[in-house]
Amino acid sequence: AHNLPRRNAFKSHHFSLEHQFSSETLHFCNIKRKTMGDNTVRIGLLGCIRFASKFVRTVTQSSNAVIIAISDPSIETANTFAAANNLSPETVAVYGSYEELLDDPRVDAVYLTMPVTQRAKWAVTAAEKKKHLLVEKPPAQNAAEIDKIVEACASNGVQFMDGTIWLHHKRTVMIRETMFDSGLLGDVRHMYSTMTTLVPEQVLERLTKEAMGLAGAIGELGWYPIGAALWAMSYQMPVSVKALPSSVATNSVGTILSCSASLQFGSTETATAIVHCSFLSQLSTDLAISGSKGSTQMNDYVIPYKEDTAWFEYTSGAKFADLHIGWNMMPERVTVDCSGNEESQEATMLREFVRLVQGIKRGDSEADPRWPEISRKTQLVVDAVKKSVDIGCEVVYL
Amino acid sequence: AHNLPRRNAFKSHHFSLEHQFSSETLHFCNIKRKTMGDNTVRIGLLGCIRFASKFVRTVTQSSNAVIIAISDPSIETANTFAAANNLSPETVAVYGSYEELLDDPRVDAVYLTMPVTQRAKWAVTAAEKKKHLLVEKPPAQNAAEIDKIVEACASNGVQFMDGTIWLHHKRTVMIRETMFDSGLLGDVRHMYSTMTTLVPEQVLERLTKEAMGLAGAIGELGWYPIGAALWAMSYQMPVSVKALPSSVATNSVGTILSCSASLQFGSTETATAIVHCSFLSQLSTDLAISGSKGSTQMNDYVIPYKEDTAWFEYTSGAKFADLHIGWNMMPERVTVDCSGNEESQEATMLREFVRLVQGIKRGDSEADPRWPEISRKTQLVVDAVKKSVDIGCEVVYL
Repeated sequence: AHNLPRRNAFKSHHFSLEHQFSSETLHFCNIKRKTMGDNTVRIGLLGCIRFASKFVRTVTQSSNAVIIAISDPSIETANTFAAANNLSPETVAVYGSYEELLDDPRVDAVYLTMPVTQRAKWAVTAAEKKKHLLVEKPPAQNAAEIDKIVEACASNGVQFMDGTIWLHHKRTVMIRETMFDSGLLGDVRHMYSTMTTLVPEQVLERLTKEAMGLAGAIGELGWYPIGAALWAMSYQMPVSVKALPSSVATNSVGTILSCSASLQFGSTETATAIVHCSFLSQLSTDLAISGSKGSTQMNDYVIPYKEDTAWFEYTSGAKFADLHIGWNMMPERVTVDCSGNEESQEATMLREFVRLVQGIKRGDSEADPRWPEISRKTQLVVDAVKKSVDIGCEVVYL
Repeated sequence: AHNLPRRNAFKSHHFSLEHQFSSETLHFCNIKRKTMGDNTVRIGLLGCIRFASKFVRTVTQSSNAVIIAISDPSIETANTFAAANNLSPETVAVYGSYEELLDDPRVDAVYLTMPVTQRAKWAVTAAEKKKHLLVEKPPAQNAAEIDKIVEACASNGVQFMDGTIWLHHKRTVMIRETMFDSGLLGDVRHMYSTMTTLVPEQVLERLTKEAMGLAGAIGELGWYPIGAALWAMSYQMPVSVKALPSSVATNSVGTILSCSASLQFGSTETATAIVHCSFLSQLSTDLAISGSKGSTQMNDYVIPYKEDTAWFEYTSGAKFADLHIGWNMMPERVTVDCSGNEESQEATMLREFVRLVQGIKRGDSEADPRWPEISRKTQLVVDAVKKSVDIGCEVVYL
């Protein structure tokens, strides 16, 4: 059955950020055949978009996970993907439908990359088939869909995690320890976070809701700066959000192309986040966090400039120097080495996912509710920003 | 007369950012006695706050300007200032009132540092006495006051300039050339700019409108990020501004302590600026400009970390690399050398001011309307943000 070609139903309207790649040939040389142990997590792909090659590369380099099956509604796409990624038919089954892969009892876990409009449906189906889930972000079109996924995972005892890679970067962990846990930052007062990437004008009109999901750029791009603000607030939810009226741009079919929003976090002291997402500006991924005692910033929080190293800068206790001819300090740069094969952010994400799946497989532990909770909270804020846009940029309370 | 002590009427409620200095002793060694030529601009100080020492230092190091008089409503303050700054009574007159200094016919130009609530009054008086004006920022409490100053300067043929130093930094000029004039940035799409500085809690309540001016933190701090946005837009005025409701904090007497606002610039393409000013966060002076083709950022635009060097970083044409494992480029860092005695931003500001005054003195040129226009536009936007706060964070159109 998995050699029957199928029409690619998504091709005409399937857009995602990941499709903007150049089409250079991929080379994964020197892939060693892994000996599969009992503890190895066997992964299947639901969706063979080119971007999934990155995930294949990461799994290939890992010591305790392996790709054993791939699937796509177009068997042609799946076969091309297999060939391009050196996935041998001897070890990797190629299916022309997601159902077939989900019926393969050898598959422990699945990685979902199909269009966001389809993700919730397939995530729920996969959970019901007892597959652990790693779902590209945004994992669904709204929080109601995420709730369905999370419920399906909970009642079937499988792990859910979305593919927000930067949360797993060693740098992210380091900032948490260096700035937050140590008290160098103090209380968070103000955050600024962006994700912008320039989409050619002729493509902008093709960004339909069917292709991008209801939240458009807010879901596709805003997911990152919104997630960054939540991360900085240790997942305390904002009290309210508000899209900035002047900042909202849509295309002729009403898809949001650009938006800024403010997030208000209430507590004894308040904190504000400004998030900005846009298809109309060049690539920017800025994250700046200002606290009562210190501040930190980086311009590549989503994907570091280089895979093998990353850094962030901070000051704590900064003041202008006497007479204001300079500062009393220079920003401190903390560099994180990620040069090992399993040290990239993709590898650390996979490691965490595999660790959780292995624990469940062995019967040692249950699914970790932290990751679905992070996805859910991020989506709730995405939804609230979207709602604010829909009601004329009024305040939306959470 | 200039030895009569006067009560310092401002002492109890005079607050400005400049008063937060530590009180280390100042040393200006090796000050060379300058030979005063016809072309030397002779400057008097109106106000002897400690911060004015920086200006004295700059003038002392310059080749074509000299301090010949200082004044303060408290002659004690003036005398202490003279001693602390090695201003010899042989060459520098010390006055116990501004009037006396303004009546000194040898004085070509004055530097005003008295509280913002007093600046407009004294600036107008000084202009009427035919003195050229360099006025600490914000130069007045609102645009109406600035208009009065500018009119007085125009009808008396004297130059007006406010003391926004960073506009004169070599780096600022370099960014203009590198990013804007060259087209590397493309059209400005989004800007983020801050000026925050932590004020101790017990001082916050003393920030009265009488001490700070009507616009509170928006005038005192917001002047910078608002000015930065205008600078990036080549002084195109925003169509509208809006304070972000969640961001506004005031003390018990209603002085604005913290505020964010969005500025909407309309044209064929729109651009948005987010400005943030606060007395509740540690020092931050971030400026990020995102354009259709490139972006640039720095975290020390107001006062560079070091006096003798400064840098900015940019990317142009940045994209994620194939497979999103990094970027297609690293940010380019442009470093500007300011190590010469007359290369600091204070020195370049003074040089520009002196150049203009010299031109007028020689009868070669008239006052340059560009600097008053920049002050006026900045103040108009400050006023609009203040008004937005006053009317419940509604949109204010300009």
